[in-house]
Amino acid sequence: MRDVAVIGVGLIKWGELWEKSLRDMFVEAALKAIDDAGVDKVDSMYVGCMSSGLFVGQEHIGALLADYLGVCPIPATRIESACASGGAAFRQAYIEVASGMSDFVLASGIEKMTDVGGGGATFALATAADQEYEVYNGVTFPGLYAMMARAHMDRYGTTRDQLSQVAVKNHDNGSKNKYAQYPFKITTDQVKNAVMIADPLTILDCSPITDGAAAVILCPLEIAKKVSRKPLVKVAGSGQASDTLALHQRKDITYLAATEAAARIAYDMAGVGPSDIDLIEAHDCFTIAEIMAIEALGLVEKGKGGHATAKGETAIGGRIPVNASGGLKSKGHPVGATGVGQICEVTEQLRGDSGERQVKGAKRGLTQNIGGTGASCVVHILEVA
Amino acid sequence: MRDVAVIGVGLIKWGELWEKSLRDMFVEAALKAIDDAGVDKVDSMYVGCMSSGLFVGQEHIGALLADYLGVCPIPATRIESACASGGAAFRQAYIEVASGMSDFVLASGIEKMTDVGGGGATFALATAADQEYEVYNGVTFPGLYAMMARAHMDRYGTTRDQLSQVAVKNHDNGSKNKYAQYPFKITTDQVKNAVMIADPLTILDCSPITDGAAAVILCPLEIAKKVSRKPLVKVAGSGQASDTLALHQRKDITYLAATEAAARIAYDMAGVGPSDIDLIEAHDCFTIAEIMAIEALGLVEKGKGGHATAKGETAIGGRIPVNASGGLKSKGHPVGATGVGQICEVTEQLRGDSGERQVKGAKRGLTQNIGGTGASCVVHILEVA
Repeated sequence: MRDVAVIGVGLIKWGELWEKSLRDMFVEAALKAIDDAGVDKVDSMYVGCMSSGLFVGQEHIGALLADYLGVCPIPATRIESACASGGAAFRQAYIEVASGMSDFVLASGIEKMTDVGGGGATFALATAADQEYEVYNGVTFPGLYAMMARAHMDRYGTTRDQLSQVAVKNHDNGSKNKYAQYPFKITTDQVKNAVMIADPLTILDCSPITDGAAAVILCPLEIAKKVSRKPLVKVAGSGQASDTLALHQRKDITYLAATEAAARIAYDMAGVGPSDIDLIEAHDCFTIAEIMAIEALGLVEKGKGGHATAKGETAIGGRIPVNASGGLKSKGHPVGATGVGQICEVTEQLRGDSGERQVKGAKRGLTQNIGGTGASCVVHILEVA
Repeated sequence: MRDVAVIGVGLIKWGELWEKSLRDMFVEAALKAIDDAGVDKVDSMYVGCMSSGLFVGQEHIGALLADYLGVCPIPATRIESACASGGAAFRQAYIEVASGMSDFVLASGIEKMTDVGGGGATFALATAADQEYEVYNGVTFPGLYAMMARAHMDRYGTTRDQLSQVAVKNHDNGSKNKYAQYPFKITTDQVKNAVMIADPLTILDCSPITDGAAAVILCPLEIAKKVSRKPLVKVAGSGQASDTLALHQRKDITYLAATEAAARIAYDMAGVGPSDIDLIEAHDCFTIAEIMAIEALGLVEKGKGGHATAKGETAIGGRIPVNASGGLKSKGHPVGATGVGQICEVTEQLRGDSGERQVKGAKRGLTQNIGGTGASCVVHILEVA
């Protein structure tokens, strides 16, 4: 397999983008990535998207978006792994470049979530859970994560305030991110006193409904050395794993087994361990998810994720900064785009381009993107080449 | 890139499978493929599926089906390119094995289309067309293909009877296929006198709504030589291409430009041309689609597809047999499964295992799988290793 580099990133401002369609958002992000890469061609493209069918009545978006970007007849394929669609799309692009099949590949992610009325977005998102055993019985994602949170609090003593501190930290970081949907600070009191969604999770424990897109350009490292004018960022490790979709079928609902499995593969491939990572973009779709993520990634002891957060270990400047971007919580969670957005953040951090959010001296970063309650997980490790 | 072989195939009887769920169908096909391959492990899996979200309210089926197959925590990814989802899933599996990332990869396709009520299936299928410019204005796929047929008849003199002969031939072939949804013969008179769907296409010009699944196992050719007890079938070429989703944006609606582009890549990769192919599985979602397919694949001159069909050139025993399986028309068209079903047919033909439908002496076969009105196309060339 060839070594692969990320040579271009493209993000747009995420939020409730009433004035932009699915195709508008994609083209804006893709052109930014192409421009950032400084290339004049793309050989193949992937689009991570969870449910354009249910959100906007449009499947077949690979070809559609290739057309609107003006790159037909290149291969254009949509990848779906629920909220891990973006990470999975990046992985397919990585494999295609590593294989030798193509040189310049666009990996993108997108979701247009606000154009669906009524309970449509909640229904669409629920299709990432087990339709026969979970959704049919009325549970939605806040409910599923609330059960995970309750179990984690019960078993490990994780507190309501520790959950809040995940949200507070991520909003602190996101307040410095011009692309974030909610770039403002919040307090622990605001989190715990906010409207209850599914006990113990309030609305400020939940990531928002977001329209957004993100794109990156990958190419072989050897070619990147010739064509790129930016600091080189290499894909050092790629791991993906699966778990049962339904929460009740897992041995332990307080632990993200697929994250642990995917991380192990990525660490092995990169020849590093958790202590070698300088920053993490983790999948904080709910505050409890970030706590479980840092445990499954081996950054903290099992059960100590809340405690580590409260101690400031995961803040910028802490032992292992998590979600310097603001995370899903503040930056927003356009589900299919999230995983690619994580790659954009880590790439910019490794280039030293993150301004006020810069993790000083960052040489190696990790992204963790999950689908559903963790049934799919994609982990990537990027490092300065 | 490593040479890759198809070492196992698994098909189930396609049709209106009221008694089988999405997960049931997948597991049945996947276990057959694993059994046929004679392997005891799978390292990674892909599922081609167009719209499980709209058809059965379930996204995230990669992890779901990995769970039901009992293969978690392997990577499990869904691929969507409308009706070309199966072919695209096979291509991703091919690239992953060729890259060296994994050895034993399951490529599968699935669609559960009959569990949706009312006009649901027609709406779900329409999302493969351009939602803003086509679907919004009320056109559905029979209407789009009817326009292509009318234009082809007008420009090239293709006749109503020639369209019928595609359906008659494919039902002849399908009548010998135990997996076919409609394994019976029909006549040209029956086709042209059947209920009109979109002039000139009658219901017997259209492929049906189908529940179905298909699966194959791929591995490196060098490993296949050691583990496989079956005649070896190698992936000689893989091509994929895109075109505008909306028909009105194409230069020529009588020609499948993405099919031509994908075929050119696959032919070049395999180092062969159209005259070196012994059999074709083409995407006959409508009778006119097969006529346009054989033209774009270079098997007949542009505009002569109907004429060649009427002369019997595409029958089993003819110059270039097309859809020995019965095609989408007789075998059925569970959209996400179709492309993988084509791979199953060609693999069995190259093994000499096709019984009454056997194309004698077949050494090299081609599959052509399209999405929408041809905006996505995936072409593979398989050959006896």
